Amino acid sequence: MMFHASVLTLYPEMFPGPLGLSLAGRALGAAWSLDTHFIRDFATDRHRTVDDTPAGGGPGMVMKADVVARAIDHASPQGDPRPRLYMSPRGKPLTQGFVRELAAGPGAVILCGRFEGVDERLIAARGLTEVSIGDYVLSGGELAALVLLDAVVRLLPGVMGHAESGTEESFETGLLEYPHYTRPQVFEGLTIPEILVSGDHQKIARWRRAEAERLTRERRPDLWAKRGSGE
Amino acid sequence: MMFHASVLTLYPEMFPGPLGLSLAGRALGAAWSLDTHFIRDFATDRHRTVDDTPAGGGPGMVMKADVVARAIDHASPQGDPRPRLYMSPRGKPLTQGFVRELAAGPGAVILCGRFEGVDERLIAARGLTEVSIGDYVLSGGELAALVLLDAVVRLLPGVMGHAESGTEESFETGLLEYPHYTRPQVFEGLTIPEILVSGDHQKIARWRRAEAERLTRERRPDLWAKRGSGE
Repeated sequence: MMFHASVLTLYPEMFPGPLGLSLAGRALGAAWSLDTHFIRDFATDRHRTVDDTPAGGGPGMVMKADVVARAIDHASPQGDPRPRLYMSPRGKPLTQGFVRELAAGPGAVILCGRFEGVDERLIAARGLTEVSIGDYVLSGGELAALVLLDAVVRLLPGVMGHAESGTEESFETGLLEYPHYTRPQVFEGLTIPEILVSGDHQKIARWRRAEAERLTRERRPDLWAKRGSGE
Repeated sequence: MMFHASVLTLYPEMFPGPLGLSLAGRALGAAWSLDTHFIRDFATDRHRTVDDTPAGGGPGMVMKADVVARAIDHASPQGDPRPRLYMSPRGKPLTQGFVRELAAGPGAVILCGRFEGVDERLIAARGLTEVSIGDYVLSGGELAALVLLDAVVRLLPGVMGHAESGTEESFETGLLEYPHYTRPQVFEGLTIPEILVSGDHQKIARWRRAEAERLTRERRPDLWAKRGSGE
């Protein structure tokens, strides 16, 4: 079954964008499919209004619940088993674990916010899960949606060249990835660590594990602390 | 002074991509400039090789230090005051604070990794700062670079319509943003909270503050805990 992504956006021309190239692009139409829905098409007034001023005042504009609801109902009718995600800095932080969950499912319906975001009532009324790709603010949800889809698509069957190449990398073991080296043997006076050219695979595996642990402890004490707790 | 971004990539056609549209696109050439450098142009062999197998074995390929170093030296000669960033899941997590720092500076040189990443020796030899946009794995650094640039560009002078619209949003106060509402007053039986239509601006400000605090406590105890510590 193909992973089916539906994106709701005010910038449909941003899709597939970078996902039309490279691994994801080659797999588009084979491992995954994508349709985009232009939210403005679901406005009903002459000016095709999608936003209005915030109730209570303040800067910016808010996306209208009624217009976006119609777009969602069109892209994802009742009975659609796909999760409905709303890309938002207030959301649950995206993790590799959630990416894997999504990749194992039928797809995703993804709402991209603009301006100050959508009317809060829409989130409950349409059962949206708010997802954040990180603790920073973007000009809209489109790049966040592209990031989420890229992370998911590369895990779909047949997309990555080396099947192995998904299990040793950062986060899959709860650790950051160990350092990599390749030829030339000497680069600006710096050599590849002796052990990596020793041919002793057991020693190499131990060294890599120790390096991954060291890097995680040093750089991400938060991740290191989570390892024991089974999170 | 214009914010000047230089991107080193194996997929130059991914840029400016989504950043060529919307706010960032309109400001391109005015508030910021972008040049992309195709790493393969800096290979010296007949096959224009940019990667090689990992020392010590294992899946995937590693980007060669010598080739990428030449690309960096071309895009960012000695004396270039811009920080050199390497987008990598092992990096320091991108925060709105770091985004602000970058936006106040002269620009950034951004290396996008592919495959298993770059030879570790390059990172030290060229003083790269590893930056991660989140705890998940992408097919390459390009989308991460686009995310970082989007976050930075919207903060540059003249880019956002409402100057105010940068200071009340998520993370700027160490809190997630309060909920937004707009017309219609009743949506599928749900009304806008009474207080927001009361016209009492002091009460509205207090309600929004309380909602932002509640959401942060409930959804992001990690952020909430950091507030007191001045991080």
